[in-house]
Amino acid sequence: MFAFINNKFLEEKDAQLQVGDLAIQRGYGVFDYFRTRNYVPLFLADYLERFFNSARGLRLELPYAKDEITKIVDELIKKNNIPEAGFRIILTGGYSPDNFHPSTSNLIVLQQLVTLPTKQKFDKGLKIILHEYMRDLPGIKSINYLMGIYLQHKIQQQNADDVLYYKEDAILEFPRSNVFIVTQEQTVVTPSENVLHGITRMKVIELAHKHYKVEERPVSVMELKQAAEVFLTSTAKRILPVLQVDDLIIGDGRPGAVTTDLYSNFLTVEETYST
Amino acid sequence: MFAFINNKFLEEKDAQLQVGDLAIQRGYGVFDYFRTRNYVPLFLADYLERFFNSARGLRLELPYAKDEITKIVDELIKKNNIPEAGFRIILTGGYSPDNFHPSTSNLIVLQQLVTLPTKQKFDKGLKIILHEYMRDLPGIKSINYLMGIYLQHKIQQQNADDVLYYKEDAILEFPRSNVFIVTQEQTVVTPSENVLHGITRMKVIELAHKHYKVEERPVSVMELKQAAEVFLTSTAKRILPVLQVDDLIIGDGRPGAVTTDLYSNFLTVEETYST
Repeated sequence: MFAFINNKFLEEKDAQLQVGDLAIQRGYGVFDYFRTRNYVPLFLADYLERFFNSARGLRLELPYAKDEITKIVDELIKKNNIPEAGFRIILTGGYSPDNFHPSTSNLIVLQQLVTLPTKQKFDKGLKIILHEYMRDLPGIKSINYLMGIYLQHKIQQQNADDVLYYKEDAILEFPRSNVFIVTQEQTVVTPSENVLHGITRMKVIELAHKHYKVEERPVSVMELKQAAEVFLTSTAKRILPVLQVDDLIIGDGRPGAVTTDLYSNFLTVEETYST
Repeated sequence: MFAFINNKFLEEKDAQLQVGDLAIQRGYGVFDYFRTRNYVPLFLADYLERFFNSARGLRLELPYAKDEITKIVDELIKKNNIPEAGFRIILTGGYSPDNFHPSTSNLIVLQQLVTLPTKQKFDKGLKIILHEYMRDLPGIKSINYLMGIYLQHKIQQQNADDVLYYKEDAILEFPRSNVFIVTQEQTVVTPSENVLHGITRMKVIELAHKHYKVEERPVSVMELKQAAEVFLTSTAKRILPVLQVDDLIIGDGRPGAVTTDLYSNFLTVEETYST
């Protein structure tokens, strides 16, 4: 698999950073992640917009404009010739002379195999646990996943699939996904403050507006537990129903009608975009 | 300058990690930092103890025992031949197959030039600002410095030298240093909960016990502001007086007697240890 680093295409194993980079020294960097379908990068403009915002948020300078990065992505799609893949773009703090203050950033573009959840996985749904935590600078897609990875052990111990962060009774997001609830009145609700604004989240909000009432506002833990349906959205998972929160079964323990409807519509959007 | 990575000594520029390492992908890793004086690694056993604790905390497996790492450090001291230097040992999440779950860790040992604060710097002291924040997993020396680096801009804007974190009115620590206050009654006090336990902090507590009353307990922002003296401790800075907090001058704006006494005693401890 070819990768791109700073100014050249290399075999991924040869794409390396000196250990002085601030990502390695201090976990300082931003990234973004999108997918291709049928060789087409889905919603690329939205992802690049967010990536550039993240870089600006951490005061990291991008060495390329959006159209140049698009060309690099296109070149990797040609070179690697994989129709359905994931793309990871990382911008690091660079080789800092004092191991603390950012320097010229290193840019990395990786194409990676991706396994999307099957319909069986959708039907089975997820069991999640709750953990009180808010990501640092939540609107920025930084590389800081210390807590998310640290909690994997707890997730396994409790036989769960993922962990939902909450802060002072307001649910926020998963380490790598956004959360939605569907109320008993079929209103689609998702938190908007102190979370990363997912691109799949944005697309689902757009879709939901066509058939349902949609609200972006704080959601309490109690409201989550009393919801008719709960689901998550992410680039690598699209839409997955949450059917259990700790010991509590959500709804009748099967994917709800609204979640299933949005999932089906989202697949159509992807297909339309890439054909 | 030679560095050590996994199992070999290399020129530092050749010490590289593939971009798939979890430090680069997810900021997941631990490290420690100590100094040499007169070719002797100061308090190495204490630093290695903490480093191993940090690794255990993040469930990262060390490829070497403490005595083997000591040998690697000794070998670098010989190869690089610098009497007074800094040493940075980093253990990363490794090359994760799914970019999320830790794998076999990569170990890096770097020797680096260090510039210790001069007596002039000590006399000048520091101006600090306050920021409400608590590090994730504060007892673990992880590589996550997202907030510490992000706040450098604010520090510069306010013409300050450093930022002190506090949480719900209790002062905690600086991004890279511990905080002490000396009360009007000459009691030396430092927070103990929700902070990294610095090795210099530990040595200063030991020293302070000989001549002063010492307390490890929560310290409020108000107590900080009413303190007779405030100082920080860190490996790279030893002891530095804090003479201004935001717009408030501490004491008479000059290094206090207790701070100066502890500083002088600490220099003696270093000298004794390394001769």
